[in-house]
Amino acid sequence: MSGELFGPALTTPAMDAAVSDEAWLRALLRFESELAAAEAGEGVIPADAAEAIAAACGSAELDARTLGAHAIASATPVVPFLSALRRKLPDESHRHLHFGATSQDALDTAAMLIASAAIGQLDGDLRRLAAACAELAERHAATGMSGRTLMRRARPTTFGLKAAGWLVAVEEARTALDRFRQTRLSVQLGGAAGSLDVLGVAGVRVAQHLAERLGLTEPVVPWHANRTRVAELAGHLAVAGGAAAKIALDVILLSQDEVGEVEVSAPGASSSMPEKRNAARAVEARAAHSRLLGVVPPLLASMASENERAAGAWQAEWSAISDAFRFTAGAVAGALDTIRDLHVDVARMRQNAEDGEPPAAAGELIRRALRRYGPRP
Amino acid sequence: MSGELFGPALTTPAMDAAVSDEAWLRALLRFESELAAAEAGEGVIPADAAEAIAAACGSAELDARTLGAHAIASATPVVPFLSALRRKLPDESHRHLHFGATSQDALDTAAMLIASAAIGQLDGDLRRLAAACAELAERHAATGMSGRTLMRRARPTTFGLKAAGWLVAVEEARTALDRFRQTRLSVQLGGAAGSLDVLGVAGVRVAQHLAERLGLTEPVVPWHANRTRVAELAGHLAVAGGAAAKIALDVILLSQDEVGEVEVSAPGASSSMPEKRNAARAVEARAAHSRLLGVVPPLLASMASENERAAGAWQAEWSAISDAFRFTAGAVAGALDTIRDLHVDVARMRQNAEDGEPPAAAGELIRRALRRYGPRP
Amino acid sequence: MSGELFGPALTTPAMDAAVSDEAWLRALLRFESELAAAEAGEGVIPADAAEAIAAACGSAELDARTLGAHAIASATPVVPFLSALRRKLPDESHRHLHFGATSQDALDTAAMLIASAAIGQLDGDLRRLAAACAELAERHAATGMSGRTLMRRARPTTFGLKAAGWLVAVEEARTALDRFRQTRLSVQLGGAAGSLDVLGVAGVRVAQHLAERLGLTEPVVPWHANRTRVAELAGHLAVAGGAAAKIALDVILLSQDEVGEVEVSAPGASSSMPEKRNAARAVEARAAHSRLLGVVPPLLASMASENERAAGAWQAEWSAISDAFRFTAGAVAGALDTIRDLHVDVARMRQNAEDGEPPAAAGELIRRALRRYGPRP
Amino acid sequence: MSGELFGPALTTPAMDAAVSDEAWLRALLRFESELAAAEAGEGVIPADAAEAIAAACGSAELDARTLGAHAIASATPVVPFLSALRRKLPDESHRHLHFGATSQDALDTAAMLIASAAIGQLDGDLRRLAAACAELAERHAATGMSGRTLMRRARPTTFGLKAAGWLVAVEEARTALDRFRQTRLSVQLGGAAGSLDVLGVAGVRVAQHLAERLGLTEPVVPWHANRTRVAELAGHLAVAGGAAAKIALDVILLSQDEVGEVEVSAPGASSSMPEKRNAARAVEARAAHSRLLGVVPPLLASMASENERAAGAWQAEWSAISDAFRFTAGAVAGALDTIRDLHVDVARMRQNAEDGEPPAAAGELIRRALRRYGPRP
Repeated sequence: MSGELFGPALTTPAMDAAVSDEAWLRALLRFESELAAAEAGEGVIPADAAEAIAAACGSAELDARTLGAHAIASATPVVPFLSALRRKLPDESHRHLHFGATSQDALDTAAMLIASAAIGQLDGDLRRLAAACAELAERHAATGMSGRTLMRRARPTTFGLKAAGWLVAVEEARTALDRFRQTRLSVQLGGAAGSLDVLGVAGVRVAQHLAERLGLTEPVVPWHANRTRVAELAGHLAVAGGAAAKIALDVILLSQDEVGEVEVSAPGASSSMPEKRNAARAVEARAAHSRLLGVVPPLLASMASENERAAGAWQAEWSAISDAFRFTAGAVAGALDTIRDLHVDVARMRQNAEDGEPPAAAGELIRRALRRYGPRP
Repeated sequence: MSGELFGPALTTPAMDAAVSDEAWLRALLRFESELAAAEAGEGVIPADAAEAIAAACGSAELDARTLGAHAIASATPVVPFLSALRRKLPDESHRHLHFGATSQDALDTAAMLIASAAIGQLDGDLRRLAAACAELAERHAATGMSGRTLMRRARPTTFGLKAAGWLVAVEEARTALDRFRQTRLSVQLGGAAGSLDVLGVAGVRVAQHLAERLGLTEPVVPWHANRTRVAELAGHLAVAGGAAAKIALDVILLSQDEVGEVEVSAPGASSSMPEKRNAARAVEARAAHSRLLGVVPPLLASMASENERAAGAWQAEWSAISDAFRFTAGAVAGALDTIRDLHVDVARMRQNAEDGEPPAAAGELIRRALRRYGPRP
Repeated sequence: MSGELFGPALTTPAMDAAVSDEAWLRALLRFESELAAAEAGEGVIPADAAEAIAAACGSAELDARTLGAHAIASATPVVPFLSALRRKLPDESHRHLHFGATSQDALDTAAMLIASAAIGQLDGDLRRLAAACAELAERHAATGMSGRTLMRRARPTTFGLKAAGWLVAVEEARTALDRFRQTRLSVQLGGAAGSLDVLGVAGVRVAQHLAERLGLTEPVVPWHANRTRVAELAGHLAVAGGAAAKIALDVILLSQDEVGEVEVSAPGASSSMPEKRNAARAVEARAAHSRLLGVVPPLLASMASENERAAGAWQAEWSAISDAFRFTAGAVAGALDTIRDLHVDVARMRQNAEDGEPPAAAGELIRRALRRYGPRP
Repeated sequence: MSGELFGPALTTPAMDAAVSDEAWLRALLRFESELAAAEAGEGVIPADAAEAIAAACGSAELDARTLGAHAIASATPVVPFLSALRRKLPDESHRHLHFGATSQDALDTAAMLIASAAIGQLDGDLRRLAAACAELAERHAATGMSGRTLMRRARPTTFGLKAAGWLVAVEEARTALDRFRQTRLSVQLGGAAGSLDVLGVAGVRVAQHLAERLGLTEPVVPWHANRTRVAELAGHLAVAGGAAAKIALDVILLSQDEVGEVEVSAPGASSSMPEKRNAARAVEARAAHSRLLGVVPPLLASMASENERAAGAWQAEWSAISDAFRFTAGAVAGALDTIRDLHVDVARMRQNAEDGEPPAAAGELIRRALRRYGPRP
């Protein structure tokens, strides 16, 4: 994998950890352990089997490389994962592990747990980005500058209003993700064909308990072949990454030598021109956004899943979801590093805005943005 | 344009009308007329100017072809649109038309009005599709059939549960679109650089009145360069079209000759084999979905807009938004025509599901889906 | 259709005609007429039937709107097209029309004929664009300017070398399209399942004659479900449109007020600021490129066609191919209009390139580009 | 990285190695070493400096993780890469390393070297896939089966003709990639702004020698901001992956229980139904294809690069190129594993093709395909 050479610039270490192989395996273990507990609670499997499973899940040391290699034969890592887990279990509990479940139950639930943690991660990054925007909006409420449309000078604006626009976009993205996290991350439990054929009606109650235990919502029916959650997630991440890429683009445009209105405080060096001040983090935010836009289509396309489980589209989701989070985090972090400690050349802004007077309404608009999305007292 | 030869199969006449040139022009006229009224209400322009403008907008006969040809020089149809409109106005009102506004104010607000009507259109189609799914779910609650995963027979399910899954996806898409319509369709009013530099603080009140008059929400700040609304819309349409494409795909798979579990009632003829029963409408739903997925990326990409107005990405939105609605409607209508009066071969379903017993939980799951999303009493 | 209001800025009238409904219908008529002639030549149908068919095709007045509406039932316009054509034929020739062919034979061959003409159209536009680049490269071979990387000033270059880079990209795109046109535009003739089941081995010879008559190549085997040609075409168009978008982007960047190194000669007006000089045609080139990038994915995705004819992906191709040509032409024409009569501020370029000396190798590099791709003597 | 858990099913170990961090670092080392040699040959740097550089490159042990982490600050791994390399060099050679080059020279040339090896890798896989198709085409030349269009039975074909169609697509993809490899993989050497400002006209000769030493072609001019090669590569990979996905899809369709015409010899197990025979490798081929289609757009979009070096699009290419190769290899390998030792149920094919007679022309068409693309004697 070229992940270690090119990857770090396109994500954050925290997000990389949140969607790592280890995080997925922990989520799979949590699914199996809590499923067993929920099933024991409903009398579907014996209580001591659930305990044995919890113990096995708690102590399992799984090797992603080995499981990944063995996953090829079945097109799902859950098959070798369960084999490895069974080796930790007394024989009599083998049949109680993953009872009535199918590999998509485990993987979809794991994906939701991963998404929950990763959105939480993003939420922090987006809050920090919003705070940095809000701070710029407040500080530069009266800093007049040239508004530019179609890349030409139009009428004046203020740098604070520009930052307020960034703030609103970031907060719109963040609150949509937050709402998605609270309402749409659902447990998956349907069994082999999504019909709870083994668990029967008890399966509905098991799913309910499982959802409670995992902090996920309960879906109306199993959603093996209804990928709205996945497509919605892709859309929300595209918006969040886009809000960040917009900030990065604006800073790059303003820091052009001839414009010179802002300067990044920690410029990136160049291999041939060590003194050149590149907005490296903004460039990386845009690169991450570009990659992000390529991860969205497969996640939207998986809506068209065949029958009760897709033959290809679903299997593409796992790594695509991870990549979508990685690249979104990369775009957001790049934008944050870019505007944190941004050096703003107020004099140059005024000079570029020849006819100068900052617009009278800018202050009011900024206050609206800050009232809605600014720092909480 | 090849629109009339290939277009009708990929959309509906009603949606085609809702996003037509004429609809866009009506929306632009409505923007200018209501803007003048709102401005007169705030004393920004004289009341009689507003009346003259309303009269001109009411009687204007604009020719899309001419305007489109003249739009090339300015990269916006609003420039020739205003010229044409001014020719209908007394000289003294010329300067009150579009006062303090910019072409993006007109076009973005028009896009929101178009979206409002088009989502309304889709809402009806999606409700009909949901009702057809609900009816199948109810009628076939106990119709056992083979669940199929990775395109192979897995454990049994019921046709009703399959239809319930369709229903849930369609309703999730519909309700998300409805929520978007109610909360995110905002008026645009920012002036040349999004800073209300001409209207000043009165512009904030004008925007508020304009929003009320047009039935749109009021944004926190002008959103010329914050395209979250557009990207969100693209995401919601992709989900709605995907829910329809999933139904179409399932019917195509079930109507394969060797499977033979459903048959479309109005089969499409073939040029070489008139007797062949093609699921033409399902095929068209999938084709529309394929085109839809191609319209989404430009709409997501426009998040990264330059400065106060994008130099390219925004100008790509107008036709892309129209196409996104067209193809979504096409997918939904294709799916609806497909399952309306679907002939279900219950005996064949049972025969294909060798071990037969429909799963005990299916009925309960279907009831959950119908309670949540079924026909309102 | 919003085609007339927003469409013209994203294409050219000539290309719009080349991919119009009428052009498609002419191509379909040509297929049927020449197929009959080729079949008569092989004794597959009577000579007088071929003559009657040629006469009917020559005099047919088909209405795209009617055919498009009737195409919905069969998911192919060829079914109503043939019905309309048969009404012009004596009864005894009915069965000789479209003999042994299937609707995909007609549509795929028509697509290749459309592509041939449309690539020819593009070839002219690209040659003009290349010539304009070459002229700039030659004229400004010694015009020093700042090279800019990551949007910051790097070492000096010349404007001629920049234009030479544009030239090379445009010509690489053009020659690839030309080679594609000469080698990959193949006739389609396979019959209902691509196996020439009706025509038998004579069908191979008919296909050969048909290819000669239509100026297309002969494929190794029918390619109903092998969409390499379509995917390759999409790739080539993306490259051509991308080469144009790169020029448009560079001009927009150089014409920013603060950079001021070039100015477009026919600036686009603004609705709020009539004096503002927007690079309207460059903006439109970028918008067309954005839409183009959205048409490519469905055309690449159709490689994965089901069995002997796709159930959705193929039906999405027809309008997508037309749109791909439209948007490519729009990008190319926008770039051409942008650099034709571009005003270059040589003094400003030198001033912006503080350390001035144009690089010694620039002249040699430009000569290499002109020797390879410059004006033919 | 979730690469080890989900990655292996979507690529091959050999391709993963060919595009690994280590492969990129080797390519970068080769660039620097051969650049020094070419420069010494032209008298641009002293011969002993070139020897010292070759020695340092030969013995360098670089850690991708460390370099990747340090790459963030400059948005290019070449900066820390050169720092690490300089630590291996005597002080007096420091300034001769990377002399007159820029980081894009190193990375673009490395990308071409990576592409050369990776296409070579793919070529072998595609040849094996073609050979497997050819073998099926020959063996089943007379095996009648139902041709299916729009997923319904149409007229008869033969399984050999279907396999011949696969063969042609695979070979069209392979030969296009091969031609691309031979003609379009060019060295990059332009210096900081692509104008050879440090090397001067000697740089043209250095580039020529460097190209010879590396087995790459010589470009007309430096191509830092002309990304035709990258976009073309993306297009070719999409076609190759698509040809593989088509085979996978067809096998999945034919191996449906109700169709039962083929069976994969090594079925994938299921976590809930160990006896179920999933076409796991075909499913993985489709998943890899889905991810591949998402990598193409960023690579096409980078055509629109800013000025002399892109601020985002280029930086997205490195990992995207690697991923594009990975997923293409995954699709091809999945298809190959799927049809290698495919069990064909000839009787079932005949039975499903009710009216049975295999078409007379099928044999001739298959011979055409085998003459053109079949096994070389």
